[in-house]
Amino acid sequence: MSTLEHSLAAAFARGGTVSELPLLLVIEDEYLLQADIEKVLTDAGFATDIVSSGEEALTLLMDGTRRPSALITDVKLAGRLTGWEVAKRIREKDPSFPVIYVTAYDRDWPAYGVPNSIVIPKPFASAQLVTAISNLLNAGTPSTT
Amino acid sequence: MSTLEHSLAAAFARGGTVSELPLLLVIEDEYLLQADIEKVLTDAGFATDIVSSGEEALTLLMDGTRRPSALITDVKLAGRLTGWEVAKRIREKDPSFPVIYVTAYDRDWPAYGVPNSIVIPKPFASAQLVTAISNLLNAGTPSTT
Amino acid sequence: MSTLEHSLAAAFARGGTVSELPLLLVIEDEYLLQADIEKVLTDAGFATDIVSSGEEALTLLMDGTRRPSALITDVKLAGRLTGWEVAKRIREKDPSFPVIYVTAYDRDWPAYGVPNSIVIPKPFASAQLVTAISNLLNAGTPSTT
Amino acid sequence: MSTLEHSLAAAFARGGTVSELPLLLVIEDEYLLQADIEKVLTDAGFATDIVSSGEEALTLLMDGTRRPSALITDVKLAGRLTGWEVAKRIREKDPSFPVIYVTAYDRDWPAYGVPNSIVIPKPFASAQLVTAISNLLNAGTPSTT
Amino acid sequence: MSTLEHSLAAAFARGGTVSELPLLLVIEDEYLLQADIEKVLTDAGFATDIVSSGEEALTLLMDGTRRPSALITDVKLAGRLTGWEVAKRIREKDPSFPVIYVTAYDRDWPAYGVPNSIVIPKPFASAQLVTAISNLLNAGTPSTT
Amino acid sequence: MSTLEHSLAAAFARGGTVSELPLLLVIEDEYLLQADIEKVLTDAGFATDIVSSGEEALTLLMDGTRRPSALITDVKLAGRLTGWEVAKRIREKDPSFPVIYVTAYDRDWPAYGVPNSIVIPKPFASAQLVTAISNLLNAGTPSTT
Repeated sequence: MSTLEHSLAAAFARGGTVSELPLLLVIEDEYLLQADIEKVLTDAGFATDIVSSGEEALTLLMDGTRRPSALITDVKLAGRLTGWEVAKRIREKDPSFPVIYVTAYDRDWPAYGVPNSIVIPKPFASAQLVTAISNLLNAGTPSTT
Repeated sequence: MSTLEHSLAAAFARGGTVSELPLLLVIEDEYLLQADIEKVLTDAGFATDIVSSGEEALTLLMDGTRRPSALITDVKLAGRLTGWEVAKRIREKDPSFPVIYVTAYDRDWPAYGVPNSIVIPKPFASAQLVTAISNLLNAGTPSTT
Repeated sequence: MSTLEHSLAAAFARGGTVSELPLLLVIEDEYLLQADIEKVLTDAGFATDIVSSGEEALTLLMDGTRRPSALITDVKLAGRLTGWEVAKRIREKDPSFPVIYVTAYDRDWPAYGVPNSIVIPKPFASAQLVTAISNLLNAGTPSTT
Repeated sequence: MSTLEHSLAAAFARGGTVSELPLLLVIEDEYLLQADIEKVLTDAGFATDIVSSGEEALTLLMDGTRRPSALITDVKLAGRLTGWEVAKRIREKDPSFPVIYVTAYDRDWPAYGVPNSIVIPKPFASAQLVTAISNLLNAGTPSTT
Repeated sequence: MSTLEHSLAAAFARGGTVSELPLLLVIEDEYLLQADIEKVLTDAGFATDIVSSGEEALTLLMDGTRRPSALITDVKLAGRLTGWEVAKRIREKDPSFPVIYVTAYDRDWPAYGVPNSIVIPKPFASAQLVTAISNLLNAGTPSTT
Repeated sequence: MSTLEHSLAAAFARGGTVSELPLLLVIEDEYLLQADIEKVLTDAGFATDIVSSGEEALTLLMDGTRRPSALITDVKLAGRLTGWEVAKRIREKDPSFPVIYVTAYDRDWPAYGVPNSIVIPKPFASAQLVTAISNLLNAGTPSTT
């Protein structure tokens, strides 16, 4: 989708006035990959704030000038905090904040993840990221028919 | 996806004979946005009937020559009917008709929405629309693993 | 997404080392359509093994050199096995193997499908295929909010 | 369960101090049946406020001295308000208030019910009432395993 | 619950007129256990038709004078038909018929069960049977909150 | 249900041979309440191992002579371990072990609970405990219909 189309989508999203897209907070410590992730999510119609560590993510959230709608986090991170710990801290403040973990060790999720989160096992396709975040932001998605 | 690819997808969809795509009935009263919405849904492989009011939507359905598979409706509409009312009327005739609401006031959904519907809060990303409608048309989507 | 982007996505998926994408086993007996299906799934970030019959699919799985993450199967197939039968055989070996059926007769699914599978009714949009497989590979997708 | 056991259950429920049970607001206009419903719910460990019309239910809620945890309502009621209307009014104030409808015409629920509610079709077994309310009050009940 | 209470519950269930309870079709080939199962389900407010083989169950259904609301079946049965086969035959006629399997080999369910069914692993508590059937008969049970 | 009935239920559960019931591991540090909880769960058809601290629960599990099917734990416990910590330790060993938390502070669950668990808010009715554990032990409980 072109930039023009995104603007139009945003306009639709607000009843005719061009405006912001849903903002995703992404924690990824591999600099080379940040641009790629940004492209996948931007193509899907999201805005992104990408940071390199859990510490930066928490600082950005506490600052309050940016208001992300959801967290996408790698589990193994460069700083002292893991993705598990960042999600827990955010949920302490906002119990319904949507959380997606990306990890090669998804067997850790049943012990360390938070309830009502999604885990995307590595390796994953770009569509899995887009579908996961869409499901979390939409309300009332029926499951079993 | 190109038009050729869509034709092929449709062919796959019917066991080798080129044919129709799933048809979505969309109610959006901002003319400038209709083309954009149509593009997002067409790129995802759907056919669309876009109308400007709830009244037109109900007329189209009663006429019966078009057979949409699902409804995507803005809640605040130009005519006398809101999106909530259109969905209710359709569900009176077809209790399992898939419904997606788009609204900036998604806190109204728990009181005015119909059961087993999806609400997409504005502003939204194009992927949220595509994921919502895909989930409603597929049967048996497992949720919690 | 370009091939470069796919490589980067794969790199992200493994923590920085370029590597494989999630592999989908697809059974489709219309040769003309195989390339189209492959394109839709590759664009979504998946790798695909496309075979023409249930027999080939089972042979490939038994061989063990390829390790698909999920099955997408047409129900009516050229060989002796239907898609229903192939899924059943796979589930006997791996009770949690993700299964997606594509069929024009989705009313057969409640009698012949396996539990926790998804059925995509024909005709379908390409997005339905991508969303279905993404939901099956992600764990913990919340449904009703 | 005896009254003593209920007191103990309540004590467990509050960490050792004997106290209140979860309170259910029930709307049933058949006086002869009120005692029976009360018995089924009391045996399951709930406290009940049973009223005869939607108007009384709304008055009781607005008064605020009683704080029910959920609504169980017959759909066809003696007063001017139906069960559909009472639930809608309550959800306007409290968007996540748990709602259970009991009705012989459960085909009306997809058009007139509120999202994330439960409908119990008549005739029903007492266990259906107890299971429905328990599911609504517990959080995080996993569905598909 | 006493017989009187059951009659009252049934009265409530039909708007004041004493009448039937939801009828469950149970297949269990151990005669000694039939009475016990009947008691558990009757105490929960259900009526039961208990037969000893899948053949009898299908005959009873085809006869049409009895109209059960759901099937509870042991998997290993005395006759030629297994519980898997009986459920499949019923679903061919009625694609949404509620099905519960009871089995010591619940690992077979992912391959042989029908979609949207429940499997109760042996050994099980009586409450599991009552909760399973109640969930199937109620519509719209929310899961993840 | 009488002891005789329980024996019969167990017999049914194993195909005719009288045997064990599903065993629940319960952590509750109020001695006065242990008997009451035991009665509620026994009446529902379960066997129980009730311990007074998280440390005892972990010891019992590591010992291996008892094989509980699920954990029910108060969150605030007398020993050093909270219910959150006990569940995490158990899930590290067995990622799919069913977990139910009972707590007056259920707003902590979204941050400290494990995925796919159930939280029962205090005060609760005895039926909520029985329904929660039944849902966790049954597989494939359909949710949204």
